[in-house]
This record gives sequence, structure tokens and C-alpha cells, in this order.
Amino acid sequence: MTILALAGGVGGAKLADGLAAILQPGELTVVVNTGDDFEHFGLHVSPDIDTVTYTLAGINNQEQGWGLAGETWSCMAALERLGGETWFRLGDHDLATHLERTRRLKTETLSAVTADFAVRLGIKQHIVPMSDEPVRTMVETDRGNMPFQDYFVRMACAPAVKGLTFNGLLQARPSPGFLGALNDPALEAIVICPSNPFLSVLPIISVNGVLPILCKRTVPMIVVSPIVGGKAIKGPAAKIMGEFGMQASCVAVAGYYANDLLQMADGIVIDSEDAAEAIRIKDLDVHVADTIMRNRDDKARLAREVLDFARHVAPRPIPYIGPL
Amino acid sequence: MTILALAGGVGGAKLADGLAAILQPGELTVVVNTGDDFEHFGLHVSPDIDTVTYTLAGINNQEQGWGLAGETWSCMAALERLGGETWFRLGDHDLATHLERTRRLKTETLSAVTADFAVRLGIKQHIVPMSDEPVRTMVETDRGNMPFQDYFVRMACAPAVKGLTFNGLLQARPSPGFLGALNDPALEAIVICPSNPFLSVLPIISVNGVLPILCKRTVPMIVVSPIVGGKAIKGPAAKIMGEFGMQASCVAVAGYYANDLLQMADGIVIDSEDAAEAIRIKDLDVHVADTIMRNRDDKARLAREVLDFARHVAPRPIPYIGPL
Repeated sequence: MTILALAGGVGGAKLADGLAAILQPGELTVVVNTGDDFEHFGLHVSPDIDTVTYTLAGINNQEQGWGLAGETWSCMAALERLGGETWFRLGDHDLATHLERTRRLKTETLSAVTADFAVRLGIKQHIVPMSDEPVRTMVETDRGNMPFQDYFVRMACAPAVKGLTFNGLLQARPSPGFLGALNDPALEAIVICPSNPFLSVLPIISVNGVLPILCKRTVPMIVVSPIVGGKAIKGPAAKIMGEFGMQASCVAVAGYYANDLLQMADGIVIDSEDAAEAIRIKDLDVHVADTIMRNRDDKARLAREVLDFARHVAPRPIPYIGPL
Repeated sequence: MTILALAGGVGGAKLADGLAAILQPGELTVVVNTGDDFEHFGLHVSPDIDTVTYTLAGINNQEQGWGLAGETWSCMAALERLGGETWFRLGDHDLATHLERTRRLKTETLSAVTADFAVRLGIKQHIVPMSDEPVRTMVETDRGNMPFQDYFVRMACAPAVKGLTFNGLLQARPSPGFLGALNDPALEAIVICPSNPFLSVLPIISVNGVLPILCKRTVPMIVVSPIVGGKAIKGPAAKIMGEFGMQASCVAVAGYYANDLLQMADGIVIDSEDAAEAIRIKDLDVHVADTIMRNRDDKARLAREVLDFARHVAPRPIPYIGPL
């Protein structure tokens, strides 16, 4: 059997790591959002792919919550001395990833480079970008339209989000690994990791040609709520829900996947803190679990619960009405 | 008064540093070879400019003989883990120079970026590239034709040099700072630092339009021999002289500048170790000095001797016969 996980950055990487730990090598494919990718100093930076890769390799920085363990910052210090921009913190080790990826992207796909890095870092599961073609998330805010990293890092998510545009999404095809996992006869479940529904998951499922397949799915799609007790564990998900006029709650997350995204989930895992909310979720099957992942045991336990839950959820395919 | 120094890497940077120390701010222009420049991981690396800049800023690594003091190597270690090429050692601090320069070169000249970096690092003299247009030294060897850094770093100068080609040199114009220094009415002397005559100095004086000016010079050109006791202090100068069928000696250096380069020097400073050779140098005025520069005092002392010597050397302009 195989599992397809959709993931953005830190939260998604944690559950993907749990799934990787409990599944046999090769059974898991993690499809990662690339809408956050950007060019910085001419280097191709893929923040979500790197977070997932570093986490599955066990070399992520757990204290800091992002980046690499034991990271050093010599380059940033020297860059500051030269008057360069340092708002996006490029660690010295992390830089190697961007340098080597950028070099290889001249002749190879992002899929190929990502897969090779994973092998070199000892990862036994598949990490694949949602697409090998560029997708760039633009954030429309009360302070203007800006590239994602400007919103996310430079402005620390302070502007109010009014809309999102995924530049290139209409032209982007799913990566071969994404398509392969979707069409794998051995596929047992699709797990939407606790990632930002708008910034991370929406671009992944919107890649050209993915939605028709997901609509016709024969396996359950399970989403793990990134909202716990009305807050996001990390990132601006709760803030953006408020700015979009939604309540920041696991109920609203369920409603978003069931209604706004037209039944793009069949079941939802919510945190035990929100157990009382379960009754308010009408459109999806609900499982209550401890979803806060503090260590590898937490991750593996949650991953197990998610897969167990998936076995009891029936897929609810819907007619696909649209182009393609 | 102003002084124009022509320099390659480490040896040239040392004397340039001495000149910088004894001259008033702004009196020195160091024109640096850019034939060693190359693109590595998509970054524009200018090894000689960086060596001169780091040295004049007092942040060069004296023990190692190249690069930055207190350098760290996290990025290279991480690059090795990813299977990337690590033959050209990019230090973490040094990387900042290449990243920021590459970024700025999209909209600025190499001259502008070099000048700004110098100011930011507290340098009071002018450091200018020989040209803002790309010149790339190709080395013809017994193991094939190869870019300079492949010869110099990757193969550690092991191949026998059969010839040199400076790609782009015919199209390259002198940088504004180079032309300005050459035509400065206050110019008192041109100092050819103890750099490789073939790899560092030849490309500088061969930049399109420079030779006619040097031929008509009204100030003395003084070369400091990079060969001491038949050996180069650093680098392959002596080895290449042998491969070119020349004796590796200060006498041969003098002959090269006087004859091969058609009187492209008026005086030569040779090391006290070679004092007995002075009598064999016929075409240039000779000054004997301690040319080994171990510290800033050595550099300043030698710089003073070179400038004192220059005051007693008459420029020997020659008719320029050639294009332009």
C-alpha cells in the first residue's frame, strides 16, 4: 500500500515525518507546495521542500522550528557588512542546498534534484514538488500585492491578506511523482497534513489536472486540522481565516475543505482540545486526536491514528465540472 | 600625487597594501586582473579583486594566505553532503561577497560594486577592475585547454602551460577608474606589483587601449620581481617561466618586461637574495630590496623603497605601433 501526503512547511513536515517513520520505505510520497519558492541572490530557494527534506532526514532545527540543526550564520554576518539584504536568513549549511539545486536546475528538473538530495540525506520515502514548473504565490494585502516571501518573512505576515494569486499555476503540470502517486493502484489514502489551507494546500490541489483526479478519487482524503483551539500552531493560517471572514476553528477548516474546496476531504482529524467542536462538523467524518507533535513519538502516533482513521472513512468522489 | 598599481592576487595585494598604508587616502589606484574571474554555482567570483580588497581591509587570512580571516566552512561541508563540487573552496563569509556582487551586477558595473564594497570595508584607496567587461583566461596545457580556475585550483597548477588565451580581451575596454588613473595629470608612477607576469599583469596591460597609453607614458613604470632566488613566493610563475623556456630568475623577469612586453617597465626591484644578479639586468634600472613581505611593516617599507626608486627612474616611452 502507498500513502500520498500533501504538505507545506513545518507543520506538514512533522506529520510527513511521522508517516515516513511508520511506513515501509517507498510507501510514502510527500507532495510539497512550491508556491513559496523564490529566487534570492539568483538562487532557487524552495523553502517547503527543504523543510520537509531536512525534517525527514532528521537534520532540521527543532529549537528554531525551521532550517537546519547546528546551523551557522557567517554568510549573513558578512552580507550585512557589505550592505546586502539579510531579511531572508540564509544559513551557511542551508546555502549549500540552494547553490547546488540552482546549479543542477540548469539541466535537471526540480523533481530530480529533490529526489537525489533526499537519497543523499538518507531519506527512504519520496519527496516530490507539486510541479516542476514555476508557481509563485502572490499575496494581495492591505499594503499592496507582494510575493509570498515578502509577506511571510520580510513583513512577518503583518499585512492583512485580501487575496492570493498563484502565478504560473494554470501552466504548471503536476510533477511525474505527484501524478504517479495519485494514479498508483496501491494508493490507500491521501493525507492533507496540518499545513496552511490557503497558502500550502490550495496550490497543490490546484495544479493543472490534479482536481479532476481528486474528484474521482477512490481512496479517502483525510485532512489534519492546522487550527487547534482557534489558533495555528505555526504560521498565519488563523490570522488569514479571520481576514477572509472565517472563524479560526477546526470547524471552519472542515467547512473550507468540504464546501469552498468542493469536498476536497472526506475526513478531518481535530485536536482533543477541540473535541467539543466535533459535533458541529457536518460534512466530514471526524476523528479526535492529540495533534500537537513535539517529538518523533508524537509524530508517529498521530500518523498511525490518521491512517487508522482513513481506513474507516469512505471516499466521497464528486462530479468534476471544469476545464480538462 | 597619485600612484597606479597593477596587481593580481596575493603577492600583488601585499604590495598594494603597503602602498595604501604610506599614501594619503585616494592617492592610490589598484587596478586588478579580472582574467581569473569565473562563474561558480552561478555566482560571479573575482578572486583577485577579493584578495586585494580583503587585504587592504585588513580582513584577509594571513595564515592561509588567501581568503578571509576567521573564515568558516559550513557551506562546503553541507555541499559535500549533497554531492556538490567542493574543489573551489567557498568560505561562508566569502560567499556573501559573491552572492551580493552577483546580485548587484545585474544592474551595476563591476567597478561600481568593487568600489562600494571597498568603502563599506573601510578602504580609503581605489580598487578597480581592469575592465568591466568579461575577460576569461584560458590555459593551454599538456592536458588540454582549460579555464584558469580549473588549471589553478582544481588541478593545482600541475599541467604544463603551453599558452594562454584571454577570452574577451579584444572586446574589453579599460574600466573608467583604470583610464582615469592612467590619464591622471597627478600620476607619479606605475607600480607593477609582484604578481604573475603572464597570468596577472599581461591581461591588465593588454586591455584594449591601455598599451598605447603606456607606450606614451611620462611616468616611470616599476616592476617588483615576483621571482626571488629562482622561485615564486606563491603561485606558478617560476614553473610557467620554465615551461615557456625561460630561466626562472629576476633577470628573466626583467627581460620579459623589457623585451617580450616591449619596454613595459623602466625599473625593476629585485630581492636582496638576488643582488648578485643585478649586473646581468641590462634593459631596466635596478633596485635591490628586501621584497619578502611578512607583515604590514615589511609591506610599507617595500612600498616606500619602490616609490623612492621610481623617483630616480626615467620613463622610457616607446613608439606605439599597432591598432587603435
